[in-house]
Amino acid sequence: MQQMLSGDGSTSGGQIILTGRAEKPGLRVDLHTHVLPRVWPDLQQRYGYGGFIRLDHVDSCTARMMEDDHFFRLVEHNLWDADRRIEECDQAGVSVQALSTVPVMFSYWAKPEDALDLSRLLNDDISSKVVAYPKRFLGLGTIPMQDAKLAIGELERCVKELGMAGVEVGTHVNDWNLDAVELEDIFAAAEDLGAAMFIHPWDMMGSDRMPKYWLPWLVGMPAETSMAMCSMIFGGVFERHPNLRVCFAHGGGSFPGTIGRIEHGFKVRPDLCAVDNAVNPRDYLGRFYVDSLVLDPNVLTSLIELMGEDCVALGSDYPFPLGEIPAGKAIDDAGDLSPSVKKKIFETNPLAFLGVNPSQFE
Amino acid sequence: MQQMLSGDGSTSGGQIILTGRAEKPGLRVDLHTHVLPRVWPDLQQRYGYGGFIRLDHVDSCTARMMEDDHFFRLVEHNLWDADRRIEECDQAGVSVQALSTVPVMFSYWAKPEDALDLSRLLNDDISSKVVAYPKRFLGLGTIPMQDAKLAIGELERCVKELGMAGVEVGTHVNDWNLDAVELEDIFAAAEDLGAAMFIHPWDMMGSDRMPKYWLPWLVGMPAETSMAMCSMIFGGVFERHPNLRVCFAHGGGSFPGTIGRIEHGFKVRPDLCAVDNAVNPRDYLGRFYVDSLVLDPNVLTSLIELMGEDCVALGSDYPFPLGEIPAGKAIDDAGDLSPSVKKKIFETNPLAFLGVNPSQFE
Repeated sequence: MQQMLSGDGSTSGGQIILTGRAEKPGLRVDLHTHVLPRVWPDLQQRYGYGGFIRLDHVDSCTARMMEDDHFFRLVEHNLWDADRRIEECDQAGVSVQALSTVPVMFSYWAKPEDALDLSRLLNDDISSKVVAYPKRFLGLGTIPMQDAKLAIGELERCVKELGMAGVEVGTHVNDWNLDAVELEDIFAAAEDLGAAMFIHPWDMMGSDRMPKYWLPWLVGMPAETSMAMCSMIFGGVFERHPNLRVCFAHGGGSFPGTIGRIEHGFKVRPDLCAVDNAVNPRDYLGRFYVDSLVLDPNVLTSLIELMGEDCVALGSDYPFPLGEIPAGKAIDDAGDLSPSVKKKIFETNPLAFLGVNPSQFE
Repeated sequence: MQQMLSGDGSTSGGQIILTGRAEKPGLRVDLHTHVLPRVWPDLQQRYGYGGFIRLDHVDSCTARMMEDDHFFRLVEHNLWDADRRIEECDQAGVSVQALSTVPVMFSYWAKPEDALDLSRLLNDDISSKVVAYPKRFLGLGTIPMQDAKLAIGELERCVKELGMAGVEVGTHVNDWNLDAVELEDIFAAAEDLGAAMFIHPWDMMGSDRMPKYWLPWLVGMPAETSMAMCSMIFGGVFERHPNLRVCFAHGGGSFPGTIGRIEHGFKVRPDLCAVDNAVNPRDYLGRFYVDSLVLDPNVLTSLIELMGEDCVALGSDYPFPLGEIPAGKAIDDAGDLSPSVKKKIFETNPLAFLGVNPSQFE
């Protein structure tokens, strides 16, 4: 038993000196979870056009997500019910969840003022859940990225008024990738505010070409995330905003496994790749976070080796089926990770990304 | 010196017994190289419509690849000049190259009879180079995949008349992915003929969304290859054609790094993923080849661990800049690979995929 404690304490002259930390287990902070309100207004009626998502409740525990009259996904009450989430967190050993909306709600394609209105509805709901469970939930808001002025206004409200840790942002904004000059002020504002920015795939490339086998999720989403990472790197976003804290979903999608190709492209065709930023993409490893959601212990180990043990942070995609249940399973299963690395992934790194002190949850 | 030989020979009672293999170095067989004829007819004139590629020769060593009047890529004479290729192979230590066309030449979008005509032109050129250097080159033809009957006819000509090892095929055929029923007879014919099938990305998804930073090549191509692998796996192609020999370019693109996500998708949404084949995608690892072109020693090591040391085969993308120069550099640089594994990747595996005996090159 004394031997087991030595990793968390230290020995001096045969005496075991326990640090404060040794007396309590570390936190499990899941930075990647999704949430919706239980109900919201009829958006087609509210805005005068379609394309929005609604929830058709089937019973108290189940609802159908509908895009107009098109069935999108069956969901359960853990998507909207804070109490149910807390129960499941307790079962899974998750201390804290960062709550963000479901990416189909981004509505970057809608009229900016409507997307702002919807963002406020969604953010107020997230905020209400955080207020109910301030030691278990954190908020990541959504903002109308298609209009920088409105986006920055809502970003400020999220951080200053609602006390959120930051925002969730899509891998592209309609025709803009994340290097677009139109988005520059938003990145600057997030940097100034110290707001975390969680980048999540949506509106997946190639969806029209992949009608079967769930491939927009299995192939398109990883590609979206790599596109977003490459756009921010090659576009110089990290150069212009060195203090911007960014985390990419799904372990960075296809970026880590193709880093050799991406770096090589930069080296051999600088006329195409280095037009806006002359820094080797590999130099940015360590400058941003990725979540741990790769669902394979070997891939996770490679990911940590590539990104560094300070840049991989627990994320589960709860409560969706493509997520990891329980959160952090691949980390637990990766036998070659030391307890100190696991603690970083479970607690230190997600809190560092979110900009939150662990004492907030004591 | 005796000590250095011991890896290839064996010792018995203090005497070194050299095997036959120890007396000659292994082959380096590069299964992924591209080639074009030096000249070909004006295809717009020949077929009566545009969209085809032509070569505008600038000088004896350089040409501009043009799509109608749109500049596509500057190329050098190693793309068409067999003698120059042999010189560069000698410099790089490459014993044998498998020659395949440049994927922009597939022309699956053209009228089937025109794509057949163009395929025959390209295949005859490849064949002429193999005839000139039968101990240094092998052929992988191109076939008009948009028409199974014509494709099978040209496949048979490639194998039976031109003595080719097989064909190069795109990651999709217009609106069809590689699970399409329209392609079924082609896979059956390749299996029956013992023809190798090298799957290469082209016409990349998301290209319209990625105008900068060469992202169709850095993000779109890996996604294309994962789409092709998932389509063949989930579509049951490997189940129906257990003896079909397939190799995917670029180390399998984004598939290996997202295998956890793909397998998990299969497990949690069989209603979407397992509609045509109930076998776990991970069970197909070891059933197909990937080339070694990942341009990073660590990624290569992970790839070999995932795919198995019998399923990764040397491929360089010669003579294009996104390729590896010299061919096999990442393999040479991967310090933790044993000589026997390197020999498999350099010689055994590419020859097994191509269905060729090493004695052919003695």
